[in-house]
Amino acid sequence: MVTLAGGVGAAKLLAGLVVAHPPGDQLAVVNTADDTVLHGLHVSPDLDTVVYTLAGAVNPDTGWGLTGETWQAMDALERYGGITWFRLGDRDLATHLYRTHRLGQGAELATITAEIAAAWGLELAVLPVTNDRIETRVTTVDEGEIGFQDYFVRRRHDVAVTDIRVDGSDRARPAPGVTEALASAASIIIAPSNPIVSIGPVLEVPGIRDAVAARRDAVVAVSPIVDGAALKGPADRLMRELGHECSVVGVARLYRDVAATLVIDEADAHLADQVEAAGLTCIVAPTVMDGVESATALARVVLSCAPDKSGAH
Amino acid sequence: MVTLAGGVGAAKLLAGLVVAHPPGDQLAVVNTADDTVLHGLHVSPDLDTVVYTLAGAVNPDTGWGLTGETWQAMDALERYGGITWFRLGDRDLATHLYRTHRLGQGAELATITAEIAAAWGLELAVLPVTNDRIETRVTTVDEGEIGFQDYFVRRRHDVAVTDIRVDGSDRARPAPGVTEALASAASIIIAPSNPIVSIGPVLEVPGIRDAVAARRDAVVAVSPIVDGAALKGPADRLMRELGHECSVVGVARLYRDVAATLVIDEADAHLADQVEAAGLTCIVAPTVMDGVESATALARVVLSCAPDKSGAH
Repeated sequence: MVTLAGGVGAAKLLAGLVVAHPPGDQLAVVNTADDTVLHGLHVSPDLDTVVYTLAGAVNPDTGWGLTGETWQAMDALERYGGITWFRLGDRDLATHLYRTHRLGQGAELATITAEIAAAWGLELAVLPVTNDRIETRVTTVDEGEIGFQDYFVRRRHDVAVTDIRVDGSDRARPAPGVTEALASAASIIIAPSNPIVSIGPVLEVPGIRDAVAARRDAVVAVSPIVDGAALKGPADRLMRELGHECSVVGVARLYRDVAATLVIDEADAHLADQVEAAGLTCIVAPTVMDGVESATALARVVLSCAPDKSGAH
Repeated sequence: MVTLAGGVGAAKLLAGLVVAHPPGDQLAVVNTADDTVLHGLHVSPDLDTVVYTLAGAVNPDTGWGLTGETWQAMDALERYGGITWFRLGDRDLATHLYRTHRLGQGAELATITAEIAAAWGLELAVLPVTNDRIETRVTTVDEGEIGFQDYFVRRRHDVAVTDIRVDGSDRARPAPGVTEALASAASIIIAPSNPIVSIGPVLEVPGIRDAVAARRDAVVAVSPIVDGAALKGPADRLMRELGHECSVVGVARLYRDVAATLVIDEADAHLADQVEAAGLTCIVAPTVMDGVESATALARVVLSCAPDKSGAH
């Protein structure tokens, strides 16, 4: 089983999927177009959110970062007027120190990610979608093109956007094993992550969209839009600004070529017909995850939609 | 007034010099051959020791690092099996994050050092001896050539050494202003730092040794060797292994071309004649600094040896 994942929303669903299905039979393929270099350190926000969440170590208040974190380094950085709008906790810093050190040694991001996941005791496999550098760039009305974290964290995604592009995606190659896993997985899940800036860059890595589309019947997507709004982040606003209908119907249209099934929330039950009209099987279920129990319940719904329910991968 | 400085010993004397002489009239030219890149971060141990000490923020137990430091990042790094033998405290990390960020922006180390010193409120100017990368390499009997921190911290300088060289010193240029300051300073002080691996690399940057030698009459050195031993670090063992007499006489011979005066400790008073025979004026005084009071007393002795006692720079 393969799950295409962004950050917080994907991590929540994965926390349910590893309860509902053997984690050793699962691979999370994670977006890296949010990655950024800060203070010389390579930061991979989505990979870390997935790993920390599955390790039970994520900060439950934010959905990212570590629980019980301290902030001595960031507080001290203020003395120098350094970059503190992207808050890196002291223990979280260790992950970036390790990743940067290993990259400097010439190790691939996929190898390093496996090391980090193993250090946290994860049984599920976690892979970056690519070992190559891809980078979401956001064209804003006020400031022109800026980096993703500049948009997402510093501007708190509170600015008007006219375009999104993924720099480097034309020459990126899928991380070793990703295409093969997509071809052989019994089911593929598209997590309730931002379709534009989380799942979008994953699909844009050459070969990935085709590999997923080739398995369309085995693909179940979960809508990140509930009742016309994103539960978290700027998916709703971005969809609207980039010309998509901001609803489960808009999500269905974005995924129609790669997914046969869309799971939508009960709040959107009245739109099920329109989702089906867009060409997807529509499943209505509670999709808001406020803990492992609701995540596991949603995971069971998702798994019940998958074509192979035998338990084989 | 210019002080050539290494780390802990130099920082202690400087803490006295800024009491005994107007700090605004002082420049510390600091060794950077100990600098290292760890986890992708540029670490400048001697610069930081000087700045933290003069800011009154140094850990009094170690003479380096920050007082009241926490170690969350290093503890967390152990999970990954990362490099933890070089302990970077959480607040200390901020300095390396800032330095690395600014270097990445293209700023010179001298500029960044001035920013860091200003952020700590220092009135004395602090400069790296060079903006270029110089790197002390240590040839050991057991492992061949290794990096300085590998020798100094990881091996706790407890290995036999047959050679020391400063990589990059042939093409390094003095940081802007250093040569000019040496030419115009009323006095030049060589701090009680390791003559081989702290003051040595400073003098090896092309132009520095000549600039100091040209002012020999104005140069006062303080011996880091007291009663045949280094107060801290491997100066004694290194001097012996590299063929120098491990005494104030050995120090005098190392500095005879660049310094006219050597301040030695009372414990070595019986060697004063031999220091004079080596061609230096010998001053006997208490040189062991266990706080600002003794450092200030030593600073006043040093200043009294300087040719210009008028208080002009």
